[in-house]
Amino acid sequence: MSIGIKDIAGYVPEGRVRADELQAAFKTERSFLERKTGSFSLARAAPQESVTDMACTAVKALMARHSGLRERVGLLVVVTQTPDGHGLPHVSAKVHGMLALPQDVAAFDISLACSGWVYAISVCRAMMEAEGIEHGIVVTADPYSKILDPADRDTGLLFGDAATATYLSSDAPEWRIGNGLFGTDGSGANALMRREDGRLHMNGRRVFEFSATLVPPTIRRLVERAGLGLGDIDLFVLHQGSRYIVDTIGERLGATDRTPWFAAEVGNTVSSTIPLALSTLDVRPLRRIVVAGFGVGLSWAANILEKST
Amino acid sequence: MSIGIKDIAGYVPEGRVRADELQAAFKTERSFLERKTGSFSLARAAPQESVTDMACTAVKALMARHSGLRERVGLLVVVTQTPDGHGLPHVSAKVHGMLALPQDVAAFDISLACSGWVYAISVCRAMMEAEGIEHGIVVTADPYSKILDPADRDTGLLFGDAATATYLSSDAPEWRIGNGLFGTDGSGANALMRREDGRLHMNGRRVFEFSATLVPPTIRRLVERAGLGLGDIDLFVLHQGSRYIVDTIGERLGATDRTPWFAAEVGNTVSSTIPLALSTLDVRPLRRIVVAGFGVGLSWAANILEKST
Repeated sequence: MSIGIKDIAGYVPEGRVRADELQAAFKTERSFLERKTGSFSLARAAPQESVTDMACTAVKALMARHSGLRERVGLLVVVTQTPDGHGLPHVSAKVHGMLALPQDVAAFDISLACSGWVYAISVCRAMMEAEGIEHGIVVTADPYSKILDPADRDTGLLFGDAATATYLSSDAPEWRIGNGLFGTDGSGANALMRREDGRLHMNGRRVFEFSATLVPPTIRRLVERAGLGLGDIDLFVLHQGSRYIVDTIGERLGATDRTPWFAAEVGNTVSSTIPLALSTLDVRPLRRIVVAGFGVGLSWAANILEKST
Repeated sequence: MSIGIKDIAGYVPEGRVRADELQAAFKTERSFLERKTGSFSLARAAPQESVTDMACTAVKALMARHSGLRERVGLLVVVTQTPDGHGLPHVSAKVHGMLALPQDVAAFDISLACSGWVYAISVCRAMMEAEGIEHGIVVTADPYSKILDPADRDTGLLFGDAATATYLSSDAPEWRIGNGLFGTDGSGANALMRREDGRLHMNGRRVFEFSATLVPPTIRRLVERAGLGLGDIDLFVLHQGSRYIVDTIGERLGATDRTPWFAAEVGNTVSSTIPLALSTLDVRPLRRIVVAGFGVGLSWAANILEKST
């Protein structure tokens, strides 16, 4: 049994912080948004909207497109590092309850951030193939607005809220998932962390340096290992950390024409950036896509998605 | 490549709450401890001892028995629902940093509790086989003493602190991991949860009813699916939720002679109960062991471990 990606549904809450509000709050110029963050509006969940709510909205959008999925799903994985209620129980159990899914669904959460979706599709593909599970859903939901320090410019200009639901299936999947490259540098664990008061702290320089240094050679190694060259890759869907890091990685790969920026209207939505981009993209002309996530941990992961047909 | 369990190291902190202290604090009789909880002392982490510390201690104990493991490990998964520092970054990244592991280690946390280890060995086996990772470590660490309500008798008599590290390898593993049975009933997500103040709440009756009802048929189905009968199983290592639930499941399986209680001196150590029991057991005469975890979620998982040789 071969498991691949069949569909992706994205959910972006309606709330927005607009460029003029960001510029006023953080005393910055529009040119800074253009060159550095790349986002002119940041998506915001409603205050009473829980992570579980966002996850359910994304899963319902996916299920609306695949009748019978609710009854057939055998694996539900939620990628989040900002779970409701101190994370006990796991969000996937709450989603399972709210959507009244069958009892034979395997459900757990994966705690990862910006690399989470790239990890999770490999973890779930492997588990589904090994255990004979034909239909699975990977959810991402990390509404960082709930943990931002309102006075912190480094994070306040960057992060947006979103959730996604990815349908993995053995039934005519659209994208084959290759073998991934995964890495960790725990010496940078404090570069992105929640402080004692629960608020997010980011050492922007450390995260940028790590991403710019580690990600391009990881992608080169991934592509070479698959017997390909960078020219064989139609698109690089990089974690949308910021416009500046995406452009930098694009330059270092010599592929700025194929490393687009997707997050201008939503911001860095953490584990959701890559699936959200894929969900909005016209993928019909594409044959091979490299996906690469990097951030909290420090953690990174890259993979090649190849059109099934 | 076939991945199995090569070794398990347990870590139980030295601190203890003793039976006389428990009886005094919760105004209970020794007979209640004997019949119901089954634990006459509960292990306690030191106040300054973090979840990351406990995880590192368990991993170091494992590495001390396998020279070269530090350099060869390719996957590190930490199962916890009580991570340090609000769970961002993940505990596995911190452990990676503290033990100075190589950069090509894939690392993430799985958020599950009492069913966590049984899930994690399947998740990691599958990922390692799919990605060609030869050496992996699954850590469990859930020191519930850090989230107990000191006035709550239902949980205060039950939970102890421990951590374990399980070595999964393609190199002469001792136990083959079968295909698991996994399940979720999210309608019971609130039966075990952290309240808004962060303290643990347990609806003991709901958890007991669920475990007594769901686990025995799950084990029967697992064994039948493998073409075996209950008589072919040498030992059932059940999640050590309480003496009473283990005895009840044993009775319903007609196998009380093979459902031992291991947690008399440590308490219910959540995701660590099963690997801790396996780490202390003389497994030489055993050929097939059923492992079954159940709890927070509500979530359950069962599997058959079979001696490799």
